Amino acid sequence: MDFLQLPESIINKSGGMDKQQEKSAAVRDRGQTTADFCSIYSKDLLPASGGEEITREFLQELLNILLSYISKSSQRSSKILDFHHPHQLKEGLEGFSLDLPDQPETLEQILVDCRDTLKYGVNTGHPRFFNQLSSGLDVIGMAGEWLTSTANTNMFTYEVSPVFILMEEFLLRKMQSIVGWSDDEGDGFFCPGGTISNLYSILVARYHFYPEVKTRGMGLLPQLALFTSEHSHYSVKKSAAVLGMGSDNVVMVKCDERGKMIPAELEACIVTAEEKGLVPFYVNVTAGTTVYGAFDPLIAIADICHKHTLWMHVDAAWGGGLLMSDRHRMKLQGIERAWSVTWNPHKMMGVPLQCSVILVKKRGLLQECNELGAEYLFQTDKPYDVSYDTGDKSIQCGRHVDVFKLWLMWKAKGSEGFGSQVNRCLENAEYLYDQLQRRTDFELVFKNKPEHSNVCFWYIPPSLRGLPPGPDRDTRLHQVAPRIKRRMMEKGSVLIGYQPLGAKVNFFRCVFSNPATQQEDIDFLLDEITRLGDDL
Amino acid sequence: MDFLQLPESIINKSGGMDKQQEKSAAVRDRGQTTADFCSIYSKDLLPASGGEEITREFLQELLNILLSYISKSSQRSSKILDFHHPHQLKEGLEGFSLDLPDQPETLEQILVDCRDTLKYGVNTGHPRFFNQLSSGLDVIGMAGEWLTSTANTNMFTYEVSPVFILMEEFLLRKMQSIVGWSDDEGDGFFCPGGTISNLYSILVARYHFYPEVKTRGMGLLPQLALFTSEHSHYSVKKSAAVLGMGSDNVVMVKCDERGKMIPAELEACIVTAEEKGLVPFYVNVTAGTTVYGAFDPLIAIADICHKHTLWMHVDAAWGGGLLMSDRHRMKLQGIERAWSVTWNPHKMMGVPLQCSVILVKKRGLLQECNELGAEYLFQTDKPYDVSYDTGDKSIQCGRHVDVFKLWLMWKAKGSEGFGSQVNRCLENAEYLYDQLQRRTDFELVFKNKPEHSNVCFWYIPPSLRGLPPGPDRDTRLHQVAPRIKRRMMEKGSVLIGYQPLGAKVNFFRCVFSNPATQQEDIDFLLDEITRLGDDL
Repeated sequence: MDFLQLPESIINKSGGMDKQQEKSAAVRDRGQTTADFCSIYSKDLLPASGGEEITREFLQELLNILLSYISKSSQRSSKILDFHHPHQLKEGLEGFSLDLPDQPETLEQILVDCRDTLKYGVNTGHPRFFNQLSSGLDVIGMAGEWLTSTANTNMFTYEVSPVFILMEEFLLRKMQSIVGWSDDEGDGFFCPGGTISNLYSILVARYHFYPEVKTRGMGLLPQLALFTSEHSHYSVKKSAAVLGMGSDNVVMVKCDERGKMIPAELEACIVTAEEKGLVPFYVNVTAGTTVYGAFDPLIAIADICHKHTLWMHVDAAWGGGLLMSDRHRMKLQGIERAWSVTWNPHKMMGVPLQCSVILVKKRGLLQECNELGAEYLFQTDKPYDVSYDTGDKSIQCGRHVDVFKLWLMWKAKGSEGFGSQVNRCLENAEYLYDQLQRRTDFELVFKNKPEHSNVCFWYIPPSLRGLPPGPDRDTRLHQVAPRIKRRMMEKGSVLIGYQPLGAKVNFFRCVFSNPATQQEDIDFLLDEITRLGDDL
Repeated sequence: MDFLQLPESIINKSGGMDKQQEKSAAVRDRGQTTADFCSIYSKDLLPASGGEEITREFLQELLNILLSYISKSSQRSSKILDFHHPHQLKEGLEGFSLDLPDQPETLEQILVDCRDTLKYGVNTGHPRFFNQLSSGLDVIGMAGEWLTSTANTNMFTYEVSPVFILMEEFLLRKMQSIVGWSDDEGDGFFCPGGTISNLYSILVARYHFYPEVKTRGMGLLPQLALFTSEHSHYSVKKSAAVLGMGSDNVVMVKCDERGKMIPAELEACIVTAEEKGLVPFYVNVTAGTTVYGAFDPLIAIADICHKHTLWMHVDAAWGGGLLMSDRHRMKLQGIERAWSVTWNPHKMMGVPLQCSVILVKKRGLLQECNELGAEYLFQTDKPYDVSYDTGDKSIQCGRHVDVFKLWLMWKAKGSEGFGSQVNRCLENAEYLYDQLQRRTDFELVFKNKPEHSNVCFWYIPPSLRGLPPGPDRDTRLHQVAPRIKRRMMEKGSVLIGYQPLGAKVNFFRCVFSNPATQQEDIDFLLDEITRLGDDL
């Protein structure tokens, strides 16, 4: 049975066939469907015998729903979110019930549920969604993910994922070469998020220095110390806790006013830790911090790591995307000296979630560190080169296919397309920075020009403008961003994050990773903040 | 602009418009598209201005490709795989190049790449794919995943995932109640695979007994011992290595002939470990082993855990699905006594990859164990109940939305639908078992009726049938399954896994989790093995 045939077999049986046929032809012309989903259930879909047409009609209807969402996503006039409190959604708004039934529901209800799920969600692809480092909706990447879920396989063996395993190899080599490693260096894989990528870096670093830890545990090891900047991602501490090293043994190195690790402070911390009897072994260097978008001085830190024989990891989860731009990649100069690198294409490169990579310079180390050689999965008497069965390199047994969407986007944009996309995001950041400098109702958190696409600022409402610096002003200013954010969420017109940092009270952090964003959206953001906060 | 309008703006401009219009109308009636993708690039898609129609046409064409794949998947006559060696695929078969270009490729090429990716992949939804515990292609689950990637968000906060966060809560409560926990017990989340779920169980168990480990590390702890059966999944050892406990400190408890942990052996191992100065703290009990599908005796082991105050974890990654069946759930009797449970709906319940859950009985423990309170993500001055910001409970910062596809499938099937699906898989296993018992050219690895859907057997080719048991026969029998598997892969007609286990030489393991499989497929499997192995 051909999917492309007319769906006569499941045309709504009610009503005269002539009229029905007319209607069918009309709706078909508009990409609509004609099945009566009110009396059809999931059991009628493929692989049920004769389920081809119903499956086609159902997925066509889903496509229409998704297309309408995608189209709305890119319209500035549409709301980013339609906020409801948890208890409101749980009570079942307009018939949208989260309850899980004993009996099946019709496909009509399933389609309604799909529409409602999107309706009450947050539109992360909207040009005015500035809330997270991951934003936008790349149609090619999304298409890649649709195909991935249709292929529905796992990354553990070449046997079940021949194409995806090879795509991973090609992408890793490409990314390693962009990092600046030679052809005989480099290893890695795609991980479920940047935290897990960072965790892998500490895991292999520990194994590199103390291979006996794998079989015998931490008991025989000295007390290890890790170093990372006070502006770095919390995943270093989290990983140290998980790996049994203790979060207290992660030394938070001081940063300068711009959020960059101070090399002399790192050196001092290493000495202090040694004096306390700890054994330094790992330094996390951030290329693009979460809040300020700062780049630690990679070369100076690489020198220190070299001098003390410490594992140098570069967390470029956020900053890695800049490697794709000829204009900005010099901000990561020195990254080639890293022993491992985290790079999340799902952030600056706009790849749909999730897509994160851990790269390890020393080939084979991940395999040695993690392999257990379970014979029921990794047989050695297979009819192909079993070095392509990469599943034993990772902690995970089954690994989700995160590679295809990036591969497809790379085909569609080329390296140069990613470069221009990154450039545009940084141009947006510079534009916002320029606007803020000109205005008296906003204040920059740091004066320097943005290095990444992060721009941090306070909005100063009229009532605070005359106040002298001090605790009273700080207390009041601290409440401004949360109040404006609350109004933003209620209105749904724009979304931006805020947070305090160190001694600095709540400020807005704007980040640009969505290619849909244009200067008019930045103008709108500032005007909207002013509108929403003017009376505070 | 309406997505459902006719795509006149991008109709192929070449040729007379009258003929073109005719053609357009004709192909539209067949769900085809009319755009000339040879001259269109990804930059022309949304969010590009005026990109609606091109986006619609492109995704419509992708849908046609995916529909054709799904339809083929369910056809018994189609091949499961078209095997090529890694070097063949890397050389670029029939123009399918894995290389990553500098310049963008056309959308036409992108669609060709999508077709080729599916063409050279493995059809895991085929009714005769018996190779992995995860198989089948559930259309509703797949639709859920398409929507998830279109929504493109993260599970860390209610702010960006209000609906998905609540769906996770509803599903976890449901699953906890099915496990048999009371309303005031139970916590958890969706994890990237069963290994990570199992890792979480060890992580919280360690924290429960030694909360200081989080900040101070393993150095102050005694040498801990973990227990699991010799038939259990290797993730327990892998996790012990990762967490700094050492894989050698995982004690492999002996199983009976059927692959079930022997409680008396566990008790003996605990005593021996204590005598060696180790401190037992954790027992992994498998409900559905990977190869034999065996269920450890949960109640007897729960008694031992209770007596020694050990954390009882049940790895029901594979067996958890049986809880959905009134007929089979008694095989997991005692699971309610577990302190934590791993359950992978992506296995027996047929949910697309990935979908795994870690359930922890003691509420709040995951949060305490993993939280670091990063203020830039988890602000406490938000305008809603921030207990719904679940991101700090997990190791991962961003967490992929794995919940929606399961939620949607539950709506579509109801609890009862999952129950019948599981029942049918186990009926298939019993049918295969019955067939094997009747035949003289096959030999069962264990005589007992299957408890789960795993059936393990040897094919004995004519040349081996007269041989007496012993090393010579074993050596030759060991080579039979790999040789047949090689031929299967070349022919692409059926796919089944094999492995050795302990003293047992290579045997086939058949597993049923695909609702598409029917008795005729099982008959075909046996006949095909006979055809392929008759001359060995």
